Amino acid sequence: MLEQLKKDVLEANLQLPKHGLVTFTWGNVSGIDREQGLVVIKPSGVAYNELKLGDMVVVDLAGNVIEGSLLPSSDTETHLVLYKAFSEIGGIVHTHSPWATSWAQAHRPIPALGTTHVDYFYGEIPITRSLTQQEILEAYELETGNVIIETFKKLDLDPVAMPGVLVASHAPFCWGKNADQAVHNAVVLDEVAKMALHTFQLNPQIDLIDQYLLDKHYLRKHGPVAYYGQK
Amino acid sequence: MLEQLKKDVLEANLQLPKHGLVTFTWGNVSGIDREQGLVVIKPSGVAYNELKLGDMVVVDLAGNVIEGSLLPSSDTETHLVLYKAFSEIGGIVHTHSPWATSWAQAHRPIPALGTTHVDYFYGEIPITRSLTQQEILEAYELETGNVIIETFKKLDLDPVAMPGVLVASHAPFCWGKNADQAVHNAVVLDEVAKMALHTFQLNPQIDLIDQYLLDKHYLRKHGPVAYYGQK
Amino acid sequence: MLEQLKKDVLEANLQLPKHGLVTFTWGNVSGIDREQGLVVIKPSGVAYNELKLGDMVVVDLAGNVIEGSLLPSSDTETHLVLYKAFSEIGGIVHTHSPWATSWAQAHRPIPALGTTHVDYFYGEIPITRSLTQQEILEAYELETGNVIIETFKKLDLDPVAMPGVLVASHAPFCWGKNADQAVHNAVVLDEVAKMALHTFQLNPQIDLIDQYLLDKHYLRKHGPVAYYGQK
Amino acid sequence: MLEQLKKDVLEANLQLPKHGLVTFTWGNVSGIDREQGLVVIKPSGVAYNELKLGDMVVVDLAGNVIEGSLLPSSDTETHLVLYKAFSEIGGIVHTHSPWATSWAQAHRPIPALGTTHVDYFYGEIPITRSLTQQEILEAYELETGNVIIETFKKLDLDPVAMPGVLVASHAPFCWGKNADQAVHNAVVLDEVAKMALHTFQLNPQIDLIDQYLLDKHYLRKHGPVAYYGQK
Repeated sequence: MLEQLKKDVLEANLQLPKHGLVTFTWGNVSGIDREQGLVVIKPSGVAYNELKLGDMVVVDLAGNVIEGSLLPSSDTETHLVLYKAFSEIGGIVHTHSPWATSWAQAHRPIPALGTTHVDYFYGEIPITRSLTQQEILEAYELETGNVIIETFKKLDLDPVAMPGVLVASHAPFCWGKNADQAVHNAVVLDEVAKMALHTFQLNPQIDLIDQYLLDKHYLRKHGPVAYYGQK
Repeated sequence: MLEQLKKDVLEANLQLPKHGLVTFTWGNVSGIDREQGLVVIKPSGVAYNELKLGDMVVVDLAGNVIEGSLLPSSDTETHLVLYKAFSEIGGIVHTHSPWATSWAQAHRPIPALGTTHVDYFYGEIPITRSLTQQEILEAYELETGNVIIETFKKLDLDPVAMPGVLVASHAPFCWGKNADQAVHNAVVLDEVAKMALHTFQLNPQIDLIDQYLLDKHYLRKHGPVAYYGQK
Repeated sequence: MLEQLKKDVLEANLQLPKHGLVTFTWGNVSGIDREQGLVVIKPSGVAYNELKLGDMVVVDLAGNVIEGSLLPSSDTETHLVLYKAFSEIGGIVHTHSPWATSWAQAHRPIPALGTTHVDYFYGEIPITRSLTQQEILEAYELETGNVIIETFKKLDLDPVAMPGVLVASHAPFCWGKNADQAVHNAVVLDEVAKMALHTFQLNPQIDLIDQYLLDKHYLRKHGPVAYYGQK
Repeated sequence: MLEQLKKDVLEANLQLPKHGLVTFTWGNVSGIDREQGLVVIKPSGVAYNELKLGDMVVVDLAGNVIEGSLLPSSDTETHLVLYKAFSEIGGIVHTHSPWATSWAQAHRPIPALGTTHVDYFYGEIPITRSLTQQEILEAYELETGNVIIETFKKLDLDPVAMPGVLVASHAPFCWGKNADQAVHNAVVLDEVAKMALHTFQLNPQIDLIDQYLLDKHYLRKHGPVAYYGQK
């Protein structure tokens, strides 16, 4: 079942080490079949160089394993709650990519400082509040998803225009219309995080990118008037 | 038509990922045939590992596509206005290379701090002013080229001796006598940008390189008395 | 003798350059057979790309070479005293990995700033005091081990929950249940050290990770209630 | 003539890109035959991936080309004056390796902060004064060598125990008993330069390594009582 989705999710997972986003098994990608309400996700703790198509795990939105002999990623609950809240996304990725994780550890959102950032992220990339002790003890992975959703509600963010977030003291989650796009955004996030650190080192008082330049670049690549790329 | 130029421009484009200057499709190289007034440029949004000779797009200096079935780079207008203003250059490259882009985002020109810099760039590498809202709304890519030209006029810079620029809040453009040399200069720019950041971290009060050492190194490699390399 | 252990130790040594932890011969891995009281260790000063199974040296816990025609690592005495003091570990690795070594040179322990750190290291990664002149002159490598043990006693640390240490002005030592796990922890240490530096650059006043998040992540991967990975 | 030396110098030159020390042609290695008073050196401006044995240039200590159809490195005069002043060295390398060059541009010597440094460099790695305008105009490459020699005399340094130097506003030169060892030291220098920058970022007030630890590590690898490596 879901053979094409499994292939896509496997391929997206294998892109993580190719782009230098993961050390060992520190990452996982999933994709969803919205019609069937089923999610394909990486098994927990399996090395990327040993990952095979048959290792992919199929779970339903309640977290039941529907197919697969391995345990799904320990972060599966986070993925599921995000799929339920963000109805337009088709793929999710979690990594501990080094630059974005440094911002998450520093408890700072990544401000929009240049066109590279706003080609993909429409504004400041948000950071969640810290989870409470109770949230962590009761349902850690679920509450990690919930605090992301809370952050997006509080800041009135559209997950399509802001395809990623930093979880405080932890690391980033990204998403996209499918697994491949989610990984694409995770690569961009780490690159943007790296350049933003160096930008602040060069100019601690730097202003945000002008709003009209932000709009221009974002809309050049996204939405009805986009003209970047091929038709 | 223009088969050799197409090969050169393709090869120059493929040098970008080899030198680590681009993530995904964040770069484009063009080359010009001055006699025919035609420019060969990368198509927009095509991945480097899929780029083929037949994908190269030929445009005239008015921006009309003369040959090719793909859309040219979305930055084509910037290339064209630079070719028109800087008559001695034969190739142009735009990237979001990480170190140079950090300086562009910080709104700082890169001062000449060592011989590596002045072997290629005769003095401080300039940064443009920010574009106005009107410029962005009316003709963004064209005005990006215009603000580069304005910067060079204001600072009385020779584009042959200063083969690159930072566009504020955006990223660098470089050029050279042909596409290959443009990419060569883009590689140097990013390396110089990296070392300049680290130099300032080690010594925030560092002075510029002495003018006579700057002259010596630049003229050792460029112009009638150059003696670097083979005849 | 000890053919399987030799293979494991060779393979663990070869992982060091693959993970970018060593320049030239700046590292060594050992493994112990607790029943026989014998240690297999890399020979001193042999390049990784020339290292063969037959080069592995077998020593007893008193430091006598039991098998092998090459001299063992000059750091062998440090390994041996650690095996004697830390009875639960089965492999040890010493490197001069660049990020961890920078912390060791700065005489700073690495505080726990995020989940990446606490997935492997239960709290702040300690740093030893400097060795005295007498310790260095009399038995340098032995005393390097002793000062590590002293550090763990003074801070009441469990070497299983804290599988690494920084030696002041020198570099890190890591360990694990076997040679492979020791190297795994050394890779994590360098990654954590890199991200901690960047975190402090982004936020010099950052607080430690919350203790309950630390506990949650560590216990998710270690001990009787762990649920990360496959059974 | 000098076939073995040419092979050694070629191989040493090819190590530069492998170790990430050079961009394009920004480096050159030479080796000397002391008996014949002849030096083999890389030709000027030839790309490393095209460098062949027959390209190596033989010059005498007066700078005359004795064999070879290509022009020798533009830095040949610097190499020659160093060979004449430092009678115990057999190979010299010049690069613009990024970390060491950043220190050179910052006009700071690299203090001895850890054992990695003192395994190879017995104390602070010196930096020259800036060259005067007259020196640059009259005999730039020769005077670059002379200012290195002046620095060593002024600081009473032994070039065997201190196999490298930073030239202010320029980049490093390293040397060793042969071309291979010179490159080895250049690799170490860049690694040490990188870690020293990060050490200062973590602790701007860090003290130098204790002199007795410096002595211990240096003498563990060099001189009559060395015991690192194989006999």
